[in-house]
Amino acid sequence: MRSDIPVDAPLRPIGGSAALAANHSPMVMPAPRELQLGSGRLPVTTAWSVAVRGHDDAQVRAGFARALRRAEERTGLTFSRLPTGEFSLEGEASRAGFVIECAGPSQTVPTLGEDESYTLEVTAVQVVLRAPTGLGILRGFETLLQLLQADASGWFLPTVSIRDEPRFPWRGLLIDVARHWQPLDVILRNLDGMALVKLNVLHLHLTEDQGIRIESRKYPRLHELGSDGHYFTQEQIRKIVAYAAERGIRVVPEFDVPGHATSWVTAYPELASAPGPYSIERQWTVFDPVLDPTNPAVYAMLDGFLGEMAALFPDAYVHIGGDEVTGVHWSGNQKIQTFIGENDLKDNAGLQSYFNRRVHAILARHGKRLIGWDEILHSDLPAGIVVQSWRGPEGLADSTKRGFTSLLSHGFYINFNEPAGMHYLNDPVPAGTALTLEQQSLVLGGEATMWSEWVSSETIDSRIWPRTAAIAERLWSAQTVCDVSDMYHRLSFVSRRLEEAGLQHESYRDPAIRRLAGDTAAPADLEALRTLVDLLEPVSSRRRTVLQLGYSQFTPLTDLADCARPDSKLARDFANGVAVLVRARDDCATRTEAFSRQLAGWRQAATRLEQGLCVHAPRLQAAAPLAAALVALCDIGQTALQALADKRAPQPGWLQTQFTKLDVAAQSVAATILPMVAPLRLLAVAAAEQDRRTQLSDDDWEQHLLTHGA
Amino acid sequence: MRSDIPVDAPLRPIGGSAALAANHSPMVMPAPRELQLGSGRLPVTTAWSVAVRGHDDAQVRAGFARALRRAEERTGLTFSRLPTGEFSLEGEASRAGFVIECAGPSQTVPTLGEDESYTLEVTAVQVVLRAPTGLGILRGFETLLQLLQADASGWFLPTVSIRDEPRFPWRGLLIDVARHWQPLDVILRNLDGMALVKLNVLHLHLTEDQGIRIESRKYPRLHELGSDGHYFTQEQIRKIVAYAAERGIRVVPEFDVPGHATSWVTAYPELASAPGPYSIERQWTVFDPVLDPTNPAVYAMLDGFLGEMAALFPDAYVHIGGDEVTGVHWSGNQKIQTFIGENDLKDNAGLQSYFNRRVHAILARHGKRLIGWDEILHSDLPAGIVVQSWRGPEGLADSTKRGFTSLLSHGFYINFNEPAGMHYLNDPVPAGTALTLEQQSLVLGGEATMWSEWVSSETIDSRIWPRTAAIAERLWSAQTVCDVSDMYHRLSFVSRRLEEAGLQHESYRDPAIRRLAGDTAAPADLEALRTLVDLLEPVSSRRRTVLQLGYSQFTPLTDLADCARPDSKLARDFANGVAVLVRARDDCATRTEAFSRQLAGWRQAATRLEQGLCVHAPRLQAAAPLAAALVALCDIGQTALQALADKRAPQPGWLQTQFTKLDVAAQSVAATILPMVAPLRLLAVAAAEQDRRTQLSDDDWEQHLLTHGA
Repeated sequence: MRSDIPVDAPLRPIGGSAALAANHSPMVMPAPRELQLGSGRLPVTTAWSVAVRGHDDAQVRAGFARALRRAEERTGLTFSRLPTGEFSLEGEASRAGFVIECAGPSQTVPTLGEDESYTLEVTAVQVVLRAPTGLGILRGFETLLQLLQADASGWFLPTVSIRDEPRFPWRGLLIDVARHWQPLDVILRNLDGMALVKLNVLHLHLTEDQGIRIESRKYPRLHELGSDGHYFTQEQIRKIVAYAAERGIRVVPEFDVPGHATSWVTAYPELASAPGPYSIERQWTVFDPVLDPTNPAVYAMLDGFLGEMAALFPDAYVHIGGDEVTGVHWSGNQKIQTFIGENDLKDNAGLQSYFNRRVHAILARHGKRLIGWDEILHSDLPAGIVVQSWRGPEGLADSTKRGFTSLLSHGFYINFNEPAGMHYLNDPVPAGTALTLEQQSLVLGGEATMWSEWVSSETIDSRIWPRTAAIAERLWSAQTVCDVSDMYHRLSFVSRRLEEAGLQHESYRDPAIRRLAGDTAAPADLEALRTLVDLLEPVSSRRRTVLQLGYSQFTPLTDLADCARPDSKLARDFANGVAVLVRARDDCATRTEAFSRQLAGWRQAATRLEQGLCVHAPRLQAAAPLAAALVALCDIGQTALQALADKRAPQPGWLQTQFTKLDVAAQSVAATILPMVAPLRLLAVAAAEQDRRTQLSDDDWEQHLLTHGA
Repeated sequence: MRSDIPVDAPLRPIGGSAALAANHSPMVMPAPRELQLGSGRLPVTTAWSVAVRGHDDAQVRAGFARALRRAEERTGLTFSRLPTGEFSLEGEASRAGFVIECAGPSQTVPTLGEDESYTLEVTAVQVVLRAPTGLGILRGFETLLQLLQADASGWFLPTVSIRDEPRFPWRGLLIDVARHWQPLDVILRNLDGMALVKLNVLHLHLTEDQGIRIESRKYPRLHELGSDGHYFTQEQIRKIVAYAAERGIRVVPEFDVPGHATSWVTAYPELASAPGPYSIERQWTVFDPVLDPTNPAVYAMLDGFLGEMAALFPDAYVHIGGDEVTGVHWSGNQKIQTFIGENDLKDNAGLQSYFNRRVHAILARHGKRLIGWDEILHSDLPAGIVVQSWRGPEGLADSTKRGFTSLLSHGFYINFNEPAGMHYLNDPVPAGTALTLEQQSLVLGGEATMWSEWVSSETIDSRIWPRTAAIAERLWSAQTVCDVSDMYHRLSFVSRRLEEAGLQHESYRDPAIRRLAGDTAAPADLEALRTLVDLLEPVSSRRRTVLQLGYSQFTPLTDLADCARPDSKLARDFANGVAVLVRARDDCATRTEAFSRQLAGWRQAATRLEQGLCVHAPRLQAAAPLAAALVALCDIGQTALQALADKRAPQPGWLQTQFTKLDVAAQSVAATILPMVAPLRLLAVAAAEQDRRTQLSDDDWEQHLLTHGA
């Protein structure tokens, strides 16, 4: 799979300003199905005792120990333990502060559609967590940890009554470990993050043109020649599968065939459709190397390899990719074209269908079901497979209409560095869907996709989190839970919890900034650089591939674009504030003061950078245009704010001049953009045309802003 | 080994102010034996080609690849590679930008005393790195990476001529993975840090009363019952040994016997000297459980176990601990006392000597040499063993006088959280040593000791680094390299390099502070808390054990004392500045202004905390006295500065009142101290007694300050 698919850029959603939102829901994310918040509280102290009722197993006990340890690290409290190191449990539920009531065990490894429901009752004297399975208990622990909070009188849980279960049974995160290798600890800490937001499928994209990232004992040439030594050993895979299972997460491996296969044919050129030799790719685009579906040795190898993998991964599904076959090498091979003719396969697409059917049969023999990207739709495959839609919203409709269970990934491409709010509103089955109820029932859920063209093990957390929590909520919570502002409010809390669980989406940044600034930067230089970085966003991965000439897998990902994070909170809050300001009818002088102060601070930082690091630090010289653009933006904003406060529009022609400057500032520089450009355009229009504001109705003004400001 | 040994607290060394130090040596640490800095530069560009002359092996190539990757990540440059992913090398040395000339291979795994020397010539056109062994080449890479720097015209190396080799052959870091478990990634990243400062021995303290942290296939009860599941598998040990060897680092395992043995007898109570059952300890002190030296089964087990370990660890040395046997269980066991009598062993000490001799023989059979803590000196052991001195400076003298090769760890106890400058001046063979030349030649070097009573995998880097770099320099560089101010200057650069290599001594702090402050802290609250934390130091590990009532292995190490780091730079710089100020004779009005501004900022932060987080955040309520103390200290400082500026001493009695306040502020709170107390005491004395300044000679004033101010 590659990431540069043609999607229409959605409008940046503008929620209400966080400052204005009065009554947010409790900080739980994903939002539970039913939640009744009381007005009381249950103080959390180390005097608590815990009782387990009903089924009592190792998964629940281990999950409880992990949850309590996280509570300890956050609160500083130490709960009592037995000499064995286990937490002490007592049998007497009526006296216990915390009662866990589990009706029965989960599967040894989690399976699709397993019951994840739970109920949670927090009263002023007791917590009772009930679930039909251990899996539900685990989900309940995560909710409890998010409810845990503090004020001046100490740590407590609010009294609350929750009945919860997921909307979709397949809530996944794909991690591409092939284009940029991601070692074991990246996977493990992201499994912790997934569990925290109740995601339940880790989709490991293990093979690509750039690498085979898993040890094959049957075909060791695969990882020996196709990995630069960077691959998971089978021991590590077992560790990943076990770690995931403990957290109620399935692991679905992907072995992409017949295309995206340069690494396969690097090891086995005799299986290719064109003569070798091959070597693994160091850049990314769609490459031509492809397995030869007319070669019986291909199926023999796949049978052996997939058999080996089937034993390693307990999940019922194996992903075979199946995307982006160019057909160039097939068209250029007379033997293959003859085979197509002799077997009535019509064309290259027919040949791929034939290939898919044979791989389907191989998987079936090994007891596995097939999942593939939406290109496999063209194959004449039996029901029971899963189609993963990535190319457009119509993919999901197509595949469910043909009766296939389906997953949505289109709109969940987190490598595009788009705002969480956009992903959040990307409902697999939106209100007013044209799908029939039966078709709707075929939608299993979706997966966020972390394609790794432009992420290292240092930056990957910042591309996954916290935005993927918004996708997790989309897939767990009801369709009607879709208030973007409320989501962002809760996201800021969940982001803290993710950080506490070991994710590095925040902590990676300061070391990266220090490295970029170099040894001679003063503290004030670093502070200025932090401000600029907070206002930047990295361009999408597909755009960076275009912008960054001469890039390769070896390009160090320690640049400004790597320090910048998607979905700038600073820019978003500013945009939300401006959106309110430009729609207001009242005197906005007092409102403008805070904006003006903020702009002055940003301008000061930009000026310091222009004269300092952008001159002296070789790694920041390319950022000089960004500092200059930020100065220009702040100046536009100050003039506009002053004009609004004065109730006098700037002189004629001013707006056009600002548009020119805004267009310059909107250009990407060093693979980053300044998302502040859009709100400043709005602000400029509102200031220049403030006379029309009084003449127009609210609706007409809104329309005018959209037309001229966006 | 435990950490609460009775050492005299050394005076905090006061180097010259960093701001005043004019000509620092180049940023290399440890300082090379000979270094001639030129005035030219060699620009570093991706057009560089590299030639390897002479011996060319995998260790050098892999080391080169790692070094170049680190240079890439720091500079953002991408050096050219072959399609295989390897860096391209060319044979033609005369044209190459970088020539590596290695005379011969190193040992497969590094050994004690192996040649680590190298020479480095950087001219305006070429780098030539020469060494007799691959090990020397590796050391040279580290020097080069530290020389690499940038200015406005780009990245370059200064022209320089270096001839370098270590003073001592054994330069170690001990990591105790037993009291608090430290997983694989902690060990690996610390090996990277060790290599960066040319340390060459990782001493793994693998067994303790609190745990057995290694898998034994012969005696699986050891790790099964003695580890809570936290131990290194043999596969992981092989990984550690290989990773270390690639970096020219030996791995010496320690299995502490016959004392510190609660974990051994938890698994095998029949080997104990008193009846069981036992369970592993969760606190730390010196415990009584001890193996029974009169029981043949003890030696049978040790023979089997040490044989298994001897095969796993290729190094010639195995550490048997041998420290802190209380003898209580021996004295209480009639059978053991009878054995002592029958075998003419005299007393418990004689019994331990007997035990040591037998273990020595076992190790010898497995081809290993014995190393132990200085208590083993009492044993009648043959030469060839190594004695590690920890209890006092006289230990090293004692053991070399008896003809034993010896190591110094006394004074390198980094868990005491003392300043780097103190460790730096702790020379194993100081100028004017009473040791004969022959005795001096028996001093192999030393080891920093990271005892883990109060470190988690999150905080451990901040307790090891950057201070251990100062110890590394002490052990590598000449006795005459001992300018504390210059060391601190270079330490700040090395600290950056360590961070870039993946150490988390800086990056762990901000997440820890956010967790401590809680969800409701505003950015300004966090900033105030950062200021306070920067001014704090954690008390020593032994003191914390006394202060923190009811502590255990399970106490979460996420407290204020864990956020605070040893050797506060902010406090040190302040102290250095004050030291200059109070000794000055001239009008210090201008000098006082900067101090006054700094104190005002700190006071503001402290006041904000007093009214904010110290009230509302439950985890910071215990820090309220610190905020109050900081306010008081700042007020004392401001009054003193004003009095100095006005040339008028405060009213009589003022100083005594301040002493009372200073004594309060000197108390530890929440297991932290404010090192600012000492310089403020000096400042108060200088202000109150300024009239005497004019009357006294410089020397007498100095004496007066030391008497009344310290």
